[in-house]
Amino acid sequence: MNFLTVEKDYLQVLREWRRDFHKFPEPGWLEFRTSAIIAENLEAWGYEVYVGKEIVHGDSMGVPDKVLADAFYKKAIESDVSSKWLEKMEAGKTGVIAVLDTGIQGPTIAYRVDIDALPILESSEEKHVPQQLNFRSQNDGFMHACGHDSHATIGLGLAQQLMKVKDKLCGKIIIIFQPAEEGVRGGSAIVASPLLDKIDYLCALHIGTGIPKGTFVAGVDGFLATTKFDVTIKGVAAHSGINAEQGKNALLASAQAALALHSLPPHSEGVARVNVGTLEAGSGRNIIPSLAKMQLEIRGETTAINSFYEERVEQIFNGVAAMYDVEVQLEKVGYALNIPSDQQLAKILKETAIQQPSVKEVIEYRDFKAGSEDATFLMQKVQKQGGLACYSIIGTNLAAGHHHEEFDIEEEDMLSALEIWVNVPFKLYEELKVNG
Amino acid sequence: MNFLTVEKDYLQVLREWRRDFHKFPEPGWLEFRTSAIIAENLEAWGYEVYVGKEIVHGDSMGVPDKVLADAFYKKAIESDVSSKWLEKMEAGKTGVIAVLDTGIQGPTIAYRVDIDALPILESSEEKHVPQQLNFRSQNDGFMHACGHDSHATIGLGLAQQLMKVKDKLCGKIIIIFQPAEEGVRGGSAIVASPLLDKIDYLCALHIGTGIPKGTFVAGVDGFLATTKFDVTIKGVAAHSGINAEQGKNALLASAQAALALHSLPPHSEGVARVNVGTLEAGSGRNIIPSLAKMQLEIRGETTAINSFYEERVEQIFNGVAAMYDVEVQLEKVGYALNIPSDQQLAKILKETAIQQPSVKEVIEYRDFKAGSEDATFLMQKVQKQGGLACYSIIGTNLAAGHHHEEFDIEEEDMLSALEIWVNVPFKLYEELKVNG
Amino acid sequence: MNFLTVEKDYLQVLREWRRDFHKFPEPGWLEFRTSAIIAENLEAWGYEVYVGKEIVHGDSMGVPDKVLADAFYKKAIESDVSSKWLEKMEAGKTGVIAVLDTGIQGPTIAYRVDIDALPILESSEEKHVPQQLNFRSQNDGFMHACGHDSHATIGLGLAQQLMKVKDKLCGKIIIIFQPAEEGVRGGSAIVASPLLDKIDYLCALHIGTGIPKGTFVAGVDGFLATTKFDVTIKGVAAHSGINAEQGKNALLASAQAALALHSLPPHSEGVARVNVGTLEAGSGRNIIPSLAKMQLEIRGETTAINSFYEERVEQIFNGVAAMYDVEVQLEKVGYALNIPSDQQLAKILKETAIQQPSVKEVIEYRDFKAGSEDATFLMQKVQKQGGLACYSIIGTNLAAGHHHEEFDIEEEDMLSALEIWVNVPFKLYEELKVNG
Amino acid sequence: MNFLTVEKDYLQVLREWRRDFHKFPEPGWLEFRTSAIIAENLEAWGYEVYVGKEIVHGDSMGVPDKVLADAFYKKAIESDVSSKWLEKMEAGKTGVIAVLDTGIQGPTIAYRVDIDALPILESSEEKHVPQQLNFRSQNDGFMHACGHDSHATIGLGLAQQLMKVKDKLCGKIIIIFQPAEEGVRGGSAIVASPLLDKIDYLCALHIGTGIPKGTFVAGVDGFLATTKFDVTIKGVAAHSGINAEQGKNALLASAQAALALHSLPPHSEGVARVNVGTLEAGSGRNIIPSLAKMQLEIRGETTAINSFYEERVEQIFNGVAAMYDVEVQLEKVGYALNIPSDQQLAKILKETAIQQPSVKEVIEYRDFKAGSEDATFLMQKVQKQGGLACYSIIGTNLAAGHHHEEFDIEEEDMLSALEIWVNVPFKLYEELKVNG
Repeated sequence: MNFLTVEKDYLQVLREWRRDFHKFPEPGWLEFRTSAIIAENLEAWGYEVYVGKEIVHGDSMGVPDKVLADAFYKKAIESDVSSKWLEKMEAGKTGVIAVLDTGIQGPTIAYRVDIDALPILESSEEKHVPQQLNFRSQNDGFMHACGHDSHATIGLGLAQQLMKVKDKLCGKIIIIFQPAEEGVRGGSAIVASPLLDKIDYLCALHIGTGIPKGTFVAGVDGFLATTKFDVTIKGVAAHSGINAEQGKNALLASAQAALALHSLPPHSEGVARVNVGTLEAGSGRNIIPSLAKMQLEIRGETTAINSFYEERVEQIFNGVAAMYDVEVQLEKVGYALNIPSDQQLAKILKETAIQQPSVKEVIEYRDFKAGSEDATFLMQKVQKQGGLACYSIIGTNLAAGHHHEEFDIEEEDMLSALEIWVNVPFKLYEELKVNG
Repeated sequence: MNFLTVEKDYLQVLREWRRDFHKFPEPGWLEFRTSAIIAENLEAWGYEVYVGKEIVHGDSMGVPDKVLADAFYKKAIESDVSSKWLEKMEAGKTGVIAVLDTGIQGPTIAYRVDIDALPILESSEEKHVPQQLNFRSQNDGFMHACGHDSHATIGLGLAQQLMKVKDKLCGKIIIIFQPAEEGVRGGSAIVASPLLDKIDYLCALHIGTGIPKGTFVAGVDGFLATTKFDVTIKGVAAHSGINAEQGKNALLASAQAALALHSLPPHSEGVARVNVGTLEAGSGRNIIPSLAKMQLEIRGETTAINSFYEERVEQIFNGVAAMYDVEVQLEKVGYALNIPSDQQLAKILKETAIQQPSVKEVIEYRDFKAGSEDATFLMQKVQKQGGLACYSIIGTNLAAGHHHEEFDIEEEDMLSALEIWVNVPFKLYEELKVNG
Repeated sequence: MNFLTVEKDYLQVLREWRRDFHKFPEPGWLEFRTSAIIAENLEAWGYEVYVGKEIVHGDSMGVPDKVLADAFYKKAIESDVSSKWLEKMEAGKTGVIAVLDTGIQGPTIAYRVDIDALPILESSEEKHVPQQLNFRSQNDGFMHACGHDSHATIGLGLAQQLMKVKDKLCGKIIIIFQPAEEGVRGGSAIVASPLLDKIDYLCALHIGTGIPKGTFVAGVDGFLATTKFDVTIKGVAAHSGINAEQGKNALLASAQAALALHSLPPHSEGVARVNVGTLEAGSGRNIIPSLAKMQLEIRGETTAINSFYEERVEQIFNGVAAMYDVEVQLEKVGYALNIPSDQQLAKILKETAIQQPSVKEVIEYRDFKAGSEDATFLMQKVQKQGGLACYSIIGTNLAAGHHHEEFDIEEEDMLSALEIWVNVPFKLYEELKVNG
Repeated sequence: MNFLTVEKDYLQVLREWRRDFHKFPEPGWLEFRTSAIIAENLEAWGYEVYVGKEIVHGDSMGVPDKVLADAFYKKAIESDVSSKWLEKMEAGKTGVIAVLDTGIQGPTIAYRVDIDALPILESSEEKHVPQQLNFRSQNDGFMHACGHDSHATIGLGLAQQLMKVKDKLCGKIIIIFQPAEEGVRGGSAIVASPLLDKIDYLCALHIGTGIPKGTFVAGVDGFLATTKFDVTIKGVAAHSGINAEQGKNALLASAQAALALHSLPPHSEGVARVNVGTLEAGSGRNIIPSLAKMQLEIRGETTAINSFYEERVEQIFNGVAAMYDVEVQLEKVGYALNIPSDQQLAKILKETAIQQPSVKEVIEYRDFKAGSEDATFLMQKVQKQGGLACYSIIGTNLAAGHHHEEFDIEEEDMLSALEIWVNVPFKLYEELKVNG
């Protein structure tokens, strides 16, 4: 038996939001327009709405440079969103939290979605649906290629649907539209918000990830803890033919660092990866290179393994700095934990999901070795307070893999996710024997 | 006693040419407009003129990419130069050789100047004379920062002045406007031209280089032999977290190569330098890098030392290719020799120079440890045929060092160089006891 | 019900053999005296006996140098063993295979033990039992520190006990005393022997390895495939101050190889390890080093993973050879596979073992991530022919860990192993419904 | 005109000393017997004699280990030298200074020779003269392969000859028998001795070095400044297959250091060399190496260049220590300066030499790019006080190059050197117009 049914033609509403977000993708920390649209709707529906500077209390890692930030801010101003919301934001301070306090005794149930896009040039092939149907990215070089447009949409749909049954709810409902998930930057930056201090249940969700259409994975474990570093090495330039000995060679420093990083030993307690993904050094053929930049990441099966390598990476760069008498700046531009879903909440989600006709199969719990997620910061906070947190996946047919220029989802699967999520409070009330 | 006096107000003519060249700088192998203007004038004055494809018979190393080449070709078309000349050119085939065959028995005397600019953004400071007097570079990001605008001008002036006294000349006069000297690319590319097969005397010249105003160095030795390489390493990308072992890591290959290159031993027979000036590798933080690019150069006190390191560099990259199972392309993008000036010709140049009132001091011969020059290819060819070749320097006050964004010369010093060079044939005739 | 009971006081016989082997340990490929004693006994009891050159048909990897080989051969000659056996051996050709052909239709059942010692100086502490009881190693610097003295003893005991019940046996019994297990060298060298061509059941065994006294592990899986390489890099010496450029630096070559080897990527299909354990290069402070030696090993969770890294290691050294223009010799000095025990035979062994009163606990099958074993070659051969092979472990209390100078076993546990093994044929006959 | 003639048959005396020293070579800092014999003779002739602990006041770098030291001390005790001298010595405190104070006003003239042997196994080929004539090294593995046996002999001969003409001398004569020249260790260790505080003229000398027989080089310049380092890197061992991450890999640390050291830039002010001559790391194939040892040296055309690289070497090892979290000990085991001979004294030596009939040719002053010498410490001290110092070379025919196992000199050339040196005081008195 279902407590709340979402009408089939509500899919049309979801589609419009999703295609609008898709058409105007904004990279992490610059979701100005996206956040403003979300906030505008939420306020209209009656939620307390908190935006940008009001919710980002931690360090904003990996904020894009000023040129890009200004460009997206300008775009947002030029769109039709209200400056009321834009004023609450700046680069590194974006995203929205909506709160509905029923005033009635009951649990605090939170939902978390992410809203940022990727720096990928979207396909303009005719077979690519967004191209066909005219909602291909208008922000050249940026694309919703990981489905966060649909996540934002599910969050909005959830907000609207729950508000419709407001008088059946108790406790508090919190919906988190987290910024900057790509590069795992936003989770740790908003986790300190006092709005998130007393959550009893937290639901997070991803679409796709290889899970087949019609399947819902209630709880996943196995996110890899990860740390992303940007490294800048500053040496001293010199002319290689005239006074080479006066140079401090940032290129050689980076070469030795790359070798040292890749030759870190494996870890006996679990999977670990260190990768130097990019390296750029030097300015001219006959100049001792004075500048090198590297982008690298660590992944670890556990947060402890990840931390082990974090320390070793710092050691290596301290060492290289001393070896070449160069200055090294190590900037942490992304960070996520390995936090498992709670099995108890997974069970409740499973039971909620099996009642939805669009859901063909439910997997209660699954180890999911693959990527990293900064929802883990919110999950950790909830669990530390004694709450339960669960990360779920809703299956879909993907046109191409995540982060691919032809990535696309099937929109009706947003409705499935929504149907599950709107029923979670009622399932919980039932379990808790409280009345909404 | 002077054979030929250049009138003082001819400086005004030189100035106009030079400022025009300065205002429209073209990088090596793309000197379309510059070559066309030179050719147009030379033809008008009565020289046989050979352009671009007619003179470049060797490999054109380090030709800029198509995008840049097309842009400069388009600029040239849009300028007022005749398409007649442009049709004789393409990227990698530029420059001009002018021949005046008197028909009278006598020596073949050749002069060589270079004409290309550098990829440097010119200063827009008010104190910078080209900015003040409105001839700052109109080709943003490119600049005559090494004085080749003045060299081209001296070549033109020489052509015009000699033509005026045509009936006093005997033998042949050849004036070479060599392309692509920066990066030492043009010398070896034009040296095979049959026009240059029987030169008895070759004069080449540079302005500045730290020599004080009023001083003329008749013959220099000590150019370092050099080879410039561009290296591309192609590996195979893979996801560092998913299938790292399937990657072939171009970044690590380049790091090992950089260390190997810099740890080549010194050479017991003279100065040698190997420098990896730039390195760029990888595309994303979590991707095994599949592409790396390096720019490096070798310098050697002798051509033999330079060759020794060329071989070692090739060995290192062959080794790295095998080590990492990557494909390595080593492109030679520049090459110059160590060829000394002939002391006998230096003496004649000295004697010519001391007769010019604008020349305060003449240094007959000087070891000049510093840079590299691809005029050395022409010098080698001449010497091999039994001719004499000399590389001279005319002093000036520099506003800033060579290759600096505020580099500038004092224009009157072009006149001094011209005065010396126009008198060289007469001095030689005197020595040879022939009559022009 | 037990088919064959070994009398308790037979332990005294085992003890004498074991202490004799322990007192005169011989390293792999030099087990001259050990093999001769084994052969002498086996022949006396009526076995067909094959020794040294008669059984080693493959490459003998990692044969010790001539000085050591001659020393151990001389010791063997000076001991009281018969020259008849010694003549059948040489360095790299040792070990014994005994065959008992009953002439009666029935299965071929083979047992494999190893017999070599380690280059470890045995403890002379009073608490060390071999010291106390006067059977400490007389071959200084060599020690039975891995229990192969007890393995050889179990093999001998098994031979004697089975011969006693010869008329109850059918088919063939083969007992393999494999040389050079340490460093995984002997397995692949003897596997080609035609004596081993038609084995139906193969039992191999180790004592200790952390398994508690009284416990028998019937079948183990999880040996890591491994390859051991010794690498010699030959360059050219030169005086670093006088003619450094004429040197070919083997030390730098080895340094780059070490970094490349340790920076090989992890494998997505399982555990893998590459370790450069030792590096020795150079002869004098001011000499460009002309010689470097490295000892390294690869381990892989599967034989395929191990092979993947073998290939990469070869690539790296080919690359280094080209990079530094040095000669590289890569000698495979050890090799083992990852071959699982057969579960069917493990079940039979388990059932045999639980009938022995000295066995307190039997573990039927166990994944045993740890070391490597060259018995895997024999297991692979048997399995390929359709036979079954099983590697078992008999527990004991160890005085110190394997390869430790105070390593020691409890001798009575040899008897437990023997009791299990002598009953295996009868258990098998029962299963096969044949009569011995 | 010669002031003092050494009789031809005095060569026999020199020969005996030299052959005795040659037969019992002692390495640097362990010249116990050699010093004792020298001291015994000097005292007998009437010199004030200072030995070992009385003259070594600075740090003794590179003292051999205790085992070797004890062995040579024992040998010395067992030889027939007086314990009186041995008691004044210990490892790191050897050598002799002899002083003759005439009591008459006059200059202090010092001579310096060295006395140590090399760790080289002397040839036992019949053609090798010391083998033929039965004075081949009795200390296996050690050999006078650089002629210091002849230097010590020349010093002794000089002492005896000058004492014979004691009443013609004025001022002071000092003869320094310096220990541990090989590895440039002794010079800096004895330079602080107050006995050396007021030297007006210092003469040092080497035999051979490629100078032809009959030729005397009065003054040389061009010694390379040098520093020798022994490096120990201590990490932490771990099993590469079990807990690799707990290791701290000293081998990889040393590999990175070797590459960094060899990739130090050349120096624009002069020749410089850094060489890692030996590297030894690790203990077992499957162990993360916990120990690495390196021997390296720096050479510099000037003391300043040498110091520049000393600093960079220290930086590199500090860096490597941080990178790999290992402990690095950098021990300076040798040090020498670049100090030129004084031209004024060279002139006097030349004039002295040309008067000797055995001297065929005299070269007054020569730049001698080659090795390093710790006599430079004494030369520097003398020059700083306003004195003059000169390093000379006496030619000879060498049987094989220095440091070769078949090295040998022609003994009669010792006599030539002696003839020059004994006459130096008289030449100086003449110059100074003082009377001896």
